[in-house]
Amino acid sequence: MSEQSQPSRTRDAEATKARLLRAATAEFAAHGIAGARVDRISTAARANKALIYAYFGNKDRLFDAVLDAHVARVLDEVPFTPEDLPGYAGHLFDFLLANPNQLRLAAWQRLERAGTGAGGDPAGMSDSMRRKIDAVAGEQGARRLPADFAPADLVVFTLALTCAWMPTSAMAPTLGDGDRIEGHRAAVVEAVRRLLR
Amino acid sequence: MSEQSQPSRTRDAEATKARLLRAATAEFAAHGIAGARVDRISTAARANKALIYAYFGNKDRLFDAVLDAHVARVLDEVPFTPEDLPGYAGHLFDFLLANPNQLRLAAWQRLERAGTGAGGDPAGMSDSMRRKIDAVAGEQGARRLPADFAPADLVVFTLALTCAWMPTSAMAPTLGDGDRIEGHRAAVVEAVRRLLR
Repeated sequence: MSEQSQPSRTRDAEATKARLLRAATAEFAAHGIAGARVDRISTAARANKALIYAYFGNKDRLFDAVLDAHVARVLDEVPFTPEDLPGYAGHLFDFLLANPNQLRLAAWQRLERAGTGAGGDPAGMSDSMRRKIDAVAGEQGARRLPADFAPADLVVFTLALTCAWMPTSAMAPTLGDGDRIEGHRAAVVEAVRRLLR
Repeated sequence: MSEQSQPSRTRDAEATKARLLRAATAEFAAHGIAGARVDRISTAARANKALIYAYFGNKDRLFDAVLDAHVARVLDEVPFTPEDLPGYAGHLFDFLLANPNQLRLAAWQRLERAGTGAGGDPAGMSDSMRRKIDAVAGEQGARRLPADFAPADLVVFTLALTCAWMPTSAMAPTLGDGDRIEGHRAAVVEAVRRLLR
């Protein structure tokens, strides 16, 4: 096959898209949606700016693509385990601490989109919440989880406790050194355990 | 006294400052620090732009002044009661729901300032956290609160649960109608109660 055969072109396009998504992730995480500059993204990705519009439509849709990719990644790497919410909180805590862009992107989304009429949650985010809430409702129905909290409250409280010590948390003091992080992680797992008793 | 006497001028200056702070609150809550425009603030406040610099220094210091005023307001209107953390959570829930700018300003601050080297928490915010943590430690020392969570964890978890359903919460589905809000409030109070047993 020649270098310009179709499979090779497809591979090039996929590689460029991946570079654009990586550069866009860094740009949106740092500056938010309004503050992000497509010029900086195309330069960082070593790609023509026109390709951003060709592949993703516009800056807002590019942000959606970045956020959906992050939702997909956390779902892959931290499977939701409704039968073990404290364990899930611990794993999610580790993942979010290692991937600070995750919560920054979600926080920009809430600040710049929610309640502004500029579009609600991206589909991937709402679906992911809906599936978690349904899974918890299922466990409650099967009496494997206490049913004294509504499923949505239990999911949202588990996530809120997990994120309480993250740098994006509006009211948390800055996370301390390694020893304190371990202590905070153990406290998060215990706090989620107490929701269930 | 003539109209231009000193007390009258002082009153004018205070009134202008108050208008600037109100306009700045709306502007920062909507657009964040980088996105805020001093031109829009001075127009909305019907004040000369130069007065912003004269009274507050620059845009960043104006944001600090806005945030400190909000911290002072929440401390006045929702006194911290370490002997009744579930009750505190309920009152703070009501206040934050009625004053959505409060958490939006704090969220912009975390996204645009924390960990960026552009200055840490404003003094008022750190002081307020420190006082809450000290108060909880005091109650624990006097055995009026269980001591199985570190004081900082207890404060941060109480705040995280209280904010879990607010529109700025990165992972909360949109808050529903009035009935559901009452249910979420009761669940928040109960969740904080469970941290303590």
